[in-house]
Amino acid sequence: MKPADIIIRADHILTMDKDLNVVRDGAIVVADGKIVCVGPADEAARKYSAPENLGGAGTVAFPGLVNTHTHSPMVYFRGLADELPLREWLEKHIWPAEEKWLSPEFVADAVELACLEMLGSGVTFFCDMYFYGDAIAAAVKRMGMRAVVGAGIVDFPTATGRNADEYLEKAERFIRDWKGDSLITPCTAPHSSYACGPDTLRKAKALSETYGVPLHIHLSETEWETHELEAKHRARPVTFLDSLGFLDPSVTAAHCVWVSDEEIGILAKRGVGVAHCIESNLKLASGFAPVVPMLNAGVRVTLGTDGAASNNDLNMLSEMSTTAKVHKALAKDPTVLNARQVMLMATRWGAEAFGMGEMTGSIETGKAADIVIADLKKPHLLPLYDIYSHIVYSMNAADIDTVLVNGMVLLKGRRLMSGDEPAIMERAAAWGKKIRG
Amino acid sequence: MKPADIIIRADHILTMDKDLNVVRDGAIVVADGKIVCVGPADEAARKYSAPENLGGAGTVAFPGLVNTHTHSPMVYFRGLADELPLREWLEKHIWPAEEKWLSPEFVADAVELACLEMLGSGVTFFCDMYFYGDAIAAAVKRMGMRAVVGAGIVDFPTATGRNADEYLEKAERFIRDWKGDSLITPCTAPHSSYACGPDTLRKAKALSETYGVPLHIHLSETEWETHELEAKHRARPVTFLDSLGFLDPSVTAAHCVWVSDEEIGILAKRGVGVAHCIESNLKLASGFAPVVPMLNAGVRVTLGTDGAASNNDLNMLSEMSTTAKVHKALAKDPTVLNARQVMLMATRWGAEAFGMGEMTGSIETGKAADIVIADLKKPHLLPLYDIYSHIVYSMNAADIDTVLVNGMVLLKGRRLMSGDEPAIMERAAAWGKKIRG
Repeated sequence: MKPADIIIRADHILTMDKDLNVVRDGAIVVADGKIVCVGPADEAARKYSAPENLGGAGTVAFPGLVNTHTHSPMVYFRGLADELPLREWLEKHIWPAEEKWLSPEFVADAVELACLEMLGSGVTFFCDMYFYGDAIAAAVKRMGMRAVVGAGIVDFPTATGRNADEYLEKAERFIRDWKGDSLITPCTAPHSSYACGPDTLRKAKALSETYGVPLHIHLSETEWETHELEAKHRARPVTFLDSLGFLDPSVTAAHCVWVSDEEIGILAKRGVGVAHCIESNLKLASGFAPVVPMLNAGVRVTLGTDGAASNNDLNMLSEMSTTAKVHKALAKDPTVLNARQVMLMATRWGAEAFGMGEMTGSIETGKAADIVIADLKKPHLLPLYDIYSHIVYSMNAADIDTVLVNGMVLLKGRRLMSGDEPAIMERAAAWGKKIRG
Repeated sequence: MKPADIIIRADHILTMDKDLNVVRDGAIVVADGKIVCVGPADEAARKYSAPENLGGAGTVAFPGLVNTHTHSPMVYFRGLADELPLREWLEKHIWPAEEKWLSPEFVADAVELACLEMLGSGVTFFCDMYFYGDAIAAAVKRMGMRAVVGAGIVDFPTATGRNADEYLEKAERFIRDWKGDSLITPCTAPHSSYACGPDTLRKAKALSETYGVPLHIHLSETEWETHELEAKHRARPVTFLDSLGFLDPSVTAAHCVWVSDEEIGILAKRGVGVAHCIESNLKLASGFAPVVPMLNAGVRVTLGTDGAASNNDLNMLSEMSTTAKVHKALAKDPTVLNARQVMLMATRWGAEAFGMGEMTGSIETGKAADIVIADLKKPHLLPLYDIYSHIVYSMNAADIDTVLVNGMVLLKGRRLMSGDEPAIMERAAAWGKKIRG
């Protein structure tokens, strides 16, 4: 008997490995934060012993969900201004609120609420783009989650900087400070091709190459953006970025709603990861991203919630369900975006988009133990014919019972293990009261 | 102090009355199954005393959600066959499964699971269309829910009848048996204009008129149906039904995806209620119903989940969120279908569609106490700026804490009060095992 830290038993283990193996009556053995064995439960029981046993009958285990695009501190603006056009929403509501309220304290408190919400819906890993990266990274690490944290760069002054050079300088310092961390991957995050000029975008790209970190950017979210770019640079956004040498597999681009067939070809050829944020795109009426054409062209499409101010939650299970359904209707074909495909987009492909596919995104020996255990003993999950279908189409956030990141149990029986849940919620209510005025 | 049965206190009471009044720090007083007072909590406390107190700080109360189209026993086929075109799904999977398994016992057991799921997501009232109406009605009544139960009519033989005349005869007996029940409203439910010929539709209409009961029908769900009707009757489905004198305010038509502008005009003019089932329409790739044009034309559009075999759940909160979002993107206008509008469609308009608006659908003195209490003390519901926004865009089924129908507490602390929850779930699992084979 070899010693281990944790043994997880489940009726179904969705490995999301390259053959999409599912282990029935299986076990996952965790030691030193890593998965050391995945296989039949009886076999694991013969080989390993561990002080902590999780899961059990009536559960399913799957890789932690990867939310590839969010602005996590914006949970504090959830529902503050709804049902407005993107520019009015940003310029009249969100930006003024940010100008008035943002601070490292605001961000740190808000990120804890966001992590609590994400863990509670099965997310283990997310990509964040916002201000005060140090405060965000520190809060995420405190909560025990995995994140790619973007150092934001724009061409205009904000509360956190005066101009592009200052943002770039701060980004470099942020990257240096956090590179090599076990949970936080710093990244360069120029806001968009309309908020950053060619010079800034080239410098951001160079910075990312110098330090070997990912690049994250908003790309073709609205039709307005394509017109703006055509007017400014006589090119559509993807074509424009490609002309700068910006696009390659280190880039994850959020949205990609208004991309032409030619641009889809470029995204595929350059190996760019796309963070599809369907609920935000729908709610802001930004449009329908051509996900089926992108997948057919070989683009790695992943899923993101976007910020909770435009969604209005950080629930990846809901994104999965909405994505799977809406694109069937758009394609007039119910066979596209099946549950396995969507599950892959929400797990392994998410990790791969950030160059972290060797480390997480699936349940395989040697990978980090980033694992979700969900309870199948629920009225809406009965009977059970297809486990993938249940996760994508029928499972609710509240069915997520236990979540591990890097082998640490962060949520157990839906209770937060890595922070003070009542205090996080009290702070959220107090900030809400202040912001409401 | 007047005696009452139940006093519900909540931070917010969404009455959904004609002015959409919201009572802050409010109370609802229930006596003899009815609402006898809605107003400020302190006022109610001075006037009434009751043995049972529900709700409290950090809760919201709103009218029970009305699911205007489902086939509740199909929960037992949840996820049995996914991601197939409608006709293949029906003809190769669902109909054979129904032929093999349907019985009054199957239906009774399945309906209890469906009721458990619906209560758990805030539904108090639904419209059902399936076979074995007696078994359905008895099960719904046992569970304490309110339902319009359709006696199904088609032109071809099934397990429950040989021809239209036999279905019509059975429908009449069913209507006689159940008319006047406090919870069950029997209705006439000819399947569709493609499964029923003009003669059958006319007889169904006459039957409904004779007994003064609602009519429920599938209408223009798929493009195929419009072609079929044009080939058979040289008219599109709505126009065809109107030519028979079938359409009036007693009719609630499910789907209405493929309706022309002219047909929308007819639906509005005739006062037909539409049961919009967006998640089923998306998942089966049936298309996008023109909800915004229907609303603009004055059609009373309500919401339904359809059966769990094509959805794959009976979660009205999710239907509300998806409806509000998808139609914004279709209309390219984020201001349409705002949270208040969608909430109205899911509550009072649902009751009105079945001619029951005087009795339920809103929280008003004199109406039946069909009330939902939800818990706002959740990470994904913080902070709170707009209560309607939270219910439509951020609330999950698991936030529903307590549900009353006709003044009876059916769900309390998410525990079923009107049935044996573990037994219902065991039976569901056992049926699933048999069906899986």
